[in-house]
Amino acid sequence: MKKLTIIKVGGKIVEEPDSLQALLQDFAKIEGLKVLVHGGGRSATQVASRLGIESQMVNGRRITDAETLKVVTMVYAGLVNKNIVAGLQALDVNALGLTGADLNYMRSEKRPVGEVDYGFVGDVKEVQSSILANLIEQGVVPVLAPLTHDKQGHMLNTNADTIAGEASKALAKHFDVTLMFCFEKKGVLSDAENEESVISEITRESFAKYVASGVIQGGMIPKLENAYEAIDAGVKEVIITRADDIFAGGGTKVI
Amino acid sequence: MKKLTIIKVGGKIVEEPDSLQALLQDFAKIEGLKVLVHGGGRSATQVASRLGIESQMVNGRRITDAETLKVVTMVYAGLVNKNIVAGLQALDVNALGLTGADLNYMRSEKRPVGEVDYGFVGDVKEVQSSILANLIEQGVVPVLAPLTHDKQGHMLNTNADTIAGEASKALAKHFDVTLMFCFEKKGVLSDAENEESVISEITRESFAKYVASGVIQGGMIPKLENAYEAIDAGVKEVIITRADDIFAGGGTKVI
Repeated sequence: MKKLTIIKVGGKIVEEPDSLQALLQDFAKIEGLKVLVHGGGRSATQVASRLGIESQMVNGRRITDAETLKVVTMVYAGLVNKNIVAGLQALDVNALGLTGADLNYMRSEKRPVGEVDYGFVGDVKEVQSSILANLIEQGVVPVLAPLTHDKQGHMLNTNADTIAGEASKALAKHFDVTLMFCFEKKGVLSDAENEESVISEITRESFAKYVASGVIQGGMIPKLENAYEAIDAGVKEVIITRADDIFAGGGTKVI
Repeated sequence: MKKLTIIKVGGKIVEEPDSLQALLQDFAKIEGLKVLVHGGGRSATQVASRLGIESQMVNGRRITDAETLKVVTMVYAGLVNKNIVAGLQALDVNALGLTGADLNYMRSEKRPVGEVDYGFVGDVKEVQSSILANLIEQGVVPVLAPLTHDKQGHMLNTNADTIAGEASKALAKHFDVTLMFCFEKKGVLSDAENEESVISEITRESFAKYVASGVIQGGMIPKLENAYEAIDAGVKEVIITRADDIFAGGGTKVI
């Protein structure tokens, strides 16, 4: 199988013109088949605020009411996605922006209301990997916005980490997938205060120990759980690193 | 060659939930290969106004400054396009939303500043028809937003009539193209006060006469000139009609 690199970049990096440009140039240099998954939360919050819509967050997740759904659809599928696509095309990368509704590539269902009503948030139910795989084989580089649809006419907000994970798992049937999560730190740190304390490799065994001892905590735990879920589903490797270290070969390798 | 129907619908129809739903149901029933081109000007004006950005129009064309470009990118490629795509997917139409930047299918250049500085408006320079034609052959239904890019990293605002005309001309190399412009009237009227006075067929000769006598005037003249430009480029027929008459076989046929 051919190698496929799927890179998920957080909001901040893609929302500032300078860091976006640097990222796109690095991304353009990656050889072989590739996919880019992006966030856009900061821009969504800004636009919502300018429209007089308050952004409500619970456990770091956005509550997506009807007005907020319009905002994230505008910002993620419009502003952020098309800026990235146009930027990549300028670098001769044949980018194609997609939400889950486009080609029906990722279908979700509105999250059931539990303790929290997250609103118009979609939990992924089905990925049409063949249609994506065909495009990728033809040299197309999908740029995935953090939006899905319910196949009943409604867009739904879906976390970009989830989009990256689900796309990776589905595409693992067609390619040798490396999934890279880019965030603000150089990798998973053994000492939160020390940027250089990157744990170069985490196994299931060491992950359990790090969690038990409190070295790994908070938002990093679901990130790593997602990583292992992807590996269980056939993804070859998951790397957690900083966007500007994509080429440096650093970061934390999850195996 | 296979038949391809390209339908351009104005802003109002796609921006109101009821008329959008009726349109999508009619569109879903069209047999064979098809493309939908949409506007979105009213929503853009509304969103701009809520963001405190004034919409400046000259001769019915929007002046697109940097802030307005962000708004139209959000509204056309995000809100309006994804509503249509999700709505069509619910009707089992395999829709794919595209701007000119996606797959680099339509490249434009920023309009030179003349008597009017239209700002970030793109004049179409190149259409990659093969990539669109391949998708269409595979059963994909492109949903084209009125946005292009300059292949240098910038999105540009481009009139939806122009997108429909340029896409039709380029696709005429691959298909027998029927181009339908849907607007508020039942067709080209011989008496502006009488909705039933639809001119069923216009030839070049009768067009010249109607213009000379003042029967056809204003915004209808460039619409018909565009129609003849499309026919010169190989488009089989151009029909000007009302969205809810797509099936009625009415409207004005431009030959």
